[in-house]
Amino acid sequence: MLISRKMEKMVGGNTAIRQMFEEGLRMARKYGAENVYDFSLGNPNVPAPPAVNESIRRLVDTVDSVQLHGYMPNAGYPAVRAAVAESLNRRFGTDYGADNIVMSVGAASAMNAVLKTILDPDDEVITFRPFFVDYNNYVENYSGKLVLAETDEKFLPDMEKLEKLYSPRTKAVLINNPNNPTGVIYPAEVIQALADSMRRAQERFGTQIMLISDEPYRELAYDGLEVPYVTHFYDNAVVCYSYSKSLSLPGERIGYVAVPKSVYRWEDIVSGIIISSRVLGMINAPSLMQHVILECLDTDISQNVAVYDKHRQLLYRILTENGFEAVYPQGAFYMWIKAPIEESAFVELCKKHRILVVIGKAFYGEGYVRAAYCVSEDCIRNSAPSWKAVAEELGLKKKEA
Amino acid sequence: MLISRKMEKMVGGNTAIRQMFEEGLRMARKYGAENVYDFSLGNPNVPAPPAVNESIRRLVDTVDSVQLHGYMPNAGYPAVRAAVAESLNRRFGTDYGADNIVMSVGAASAMNAVLKTILDPDDEVITFRPFFVDYNNYVENYSGKLVLAETDEKFLPDMEKLEKLYSPRTKAVLINNPNNPTGVIYPAEVIQALADSMRRAQERFGTQIMLISDEPYRELAYDGLEVPYVTHFYDNAVVCYSYSKSLSLPGERIGYVAVPKSVYRWEDIVSGIIISSRVLGMINAPSLMQHVILECLDTDISQNVAVYDKHRQLLYRILTENGFEAVYPQGAFYMWIKAPIEESAFVELCKKHRILVVIGKAFYGEGYVRAAYCVSEDCIRNSAPSWKAVAEELGLKKKEA
Repeated sequence: MLISRKMEKMVGGNTAIRQMFEEGLRMARKYGAENVYDFSLGNPNVPAPPAVNESIRRLVDTVDSVQLHGYMPNAGYPAVRAAVAESLNRRFGTDYGADNIVMSVGAASAMNAVLKTILDPDDEVITFRPFFVDYNNYVENYSGKLVLAETDEKFLPDMEKLEKLYSPRTKAVLINNPNNPTGVIYPAEVIQALADSMRRAQERFGTQIMLISDEPYRELAYDGLEVPYVTHFYDNAVVCYSYSKSLSLPGERIGYVAVPKSVYRWEDIVSGIIISSRVLGMINAPSLMQHVILECLDTDISQNVAVYDKHRQLLYRILTENGFEAVYPQGAFYMWIKAPIEESAFVELCKKHRILVVIGKAFYGEGYVRAAYCVSEDCIRNSAPSWKAVAEELGLKKKEA
Repeated sequence: MLISRKMEKMVGGNTAIRQMFEEGLRMARKYGAENVYDFSLGNPNVPAPPAVNESIRRLVDTVDSVQLHGYMPNAGYPAVRAAVAESLNRRFGTDYGADNIVMSVGAASAMNAVLKTILDPDDEVITFRPFFVDYNNYVENYSGKLVLAETDEKFLPDMEKLEKLYSPRTKAVLINNPNNPTGVIYPAEVIQALADSMRRAQERFGTQIMLISDEPYRELAYDGLEVPYVTHFYDNAVVCYSYSKSLSLPGERIGYVAVPKSVYRWEDIVSGIIISSRVLGMINAPSLMQHVILECLDTDISQNVAVYDKHRQLLYRILTENGFEAVYPQGAFYMWIKAPIEESAFVELCKKHRILVVIGKAFYGEGYVRAAYCVSEDCIRNSAPSWKAVAEELGLKKKEA
């Protein structure tokens, strides 16, 4: 057999996702795309800020082609790394230099490069349920083991249960803040408690444990909430970032990883991340987009955030008015909706009424489904009768006005 | 320790390369960049064809931002996959449909995705010395073992020695055509013999063995030579391609892998490659560049090839006139130069005369060094006195005119 045993299983498992995707296409053909309310994908529907395309035009007109599209050091253009560092220092009071930043092919490849740098086979990475589905695969890429920690009723880390999960093989704790799929933001006191807990574990085992913060949704925080900057709480913390959501460039694969000087032997970690990016085949972050980032670092994206905020409130109102319970999102663009019946039956019932949501089990969460509200306002508004029909079929009690 | 044991070694080994890079910078500062003849990097120095930037301008002006920079299926835009398939069918008489093409973050990530799809731990991949240095790392990423096969005096595969290297664990044979670092093109009779040999091995062990052809230099073939299209010779053949060299876009990370319908269970292999790209963190090939490729598939790049051809002849003449021996390149943009003395001493002597070349050992080759002639014509021309000085210091006999 040509295919590997491991991949054979993954290809088999993938069929379910593919079937769902194909189901969506089939429904769009049958009912018309505008009559299918697809909340299944985290694909930003707001355009990139005008500054992005203006920057591309200017770069193409003024920068030499070999410089614009050519190789640069694997870590990225020194000027881009320096500018990202300075921007972060201004915004978060950090102390980054260009050498602390490695430009990456989005946040997912940044995380892969970090994990490849630190994991030996059977090393453990702790993360909190529910979590982004591919974290498991990222850790398994390096023969590591993902250890599942619990969250409380507010979907914040359960510190007591966490204590029992550390081992001498714990190499990292991985968080996603703001969180996909719950929309929760871990506040400063949670990050502080997590940092304290990790320091105690480091002392107990005489090891170094990295806090990896996956932050593609950092700027998507509502109601004036702040996303704490992890490196202020814990020395061995790194941040993986993507411009996918903030600049609406998810297809372009551009992000970075920030490794502060407080990280144990940070220069070797940075070298490891650069080598990992190279040998995994990413080589470097796309060159034109690096130039774009340099010009768009301080772009005002409050208009785009306001759009998501409006969608958030609109969908939440529709849901709760019809008697559904959901976590009111503090950040990102996901609504974590309690399934009033068994989840897969709920997903099917929604589908019957032309609503597509993702089952919570896909995120190792139970009793919930995820609706991504990074869709058009019309889609949300027009989905109201369908949500109403689902609620009626379930006999949900309407919320009093 | 935070860093993994494996990465600790790689970071240590990397220092040599970093030192060489820093040495180059130091020399450029000391003598002036124009007085250092840096043949160490495979970075195209010719600009992208004008069609590329024209296409970018047009796309930015006319395509909706969410479509231009947004997510698409992980395998790439269906229209781009279809167009690549049709272009290949026209040029090489293949039978690709859109489903046979997966757009990738360059050829290196395509190869990683293929290897992740087929390798179980301790599976073996055969490649021929000398070879691109990171092949070893690509295979080790998936706990595979790279098995080194020999080439003959023309740097073509030694078929007799190859026969002894197959085992029940042989999962793939990996070739690079045209070849980096030798500049040799494997002709049709070599590919035919290789295919016959692999078929015999498949029968002997009752296994499937994939032929992986890494072809970023396919269009850089000189003197009217043709690069055979492997899928015509062998059923289980896949092609990894990058637009880095043909369209001078190495920083943009855009390429594809082609999996013909003749590959054993090709649909699962394609699914595996798509899943691998996702879980390794590449997610998808950069979106704007996919659109660019769609518009630039049939761009005439003969002018750029002519530039490299001129450089090839110029450098070869300078070298041979001074008594050096080198493989006259048939493709790519590398000159494989015989070291008249022990290789590292030769590299040092070149450096003394401000010439930077890469030691052959970096490619698991012995007795040679590699000079990349994808530099400016001035650089090659002005390097002549330095080559002459090296030759004189070595007492090389000048070639008769």
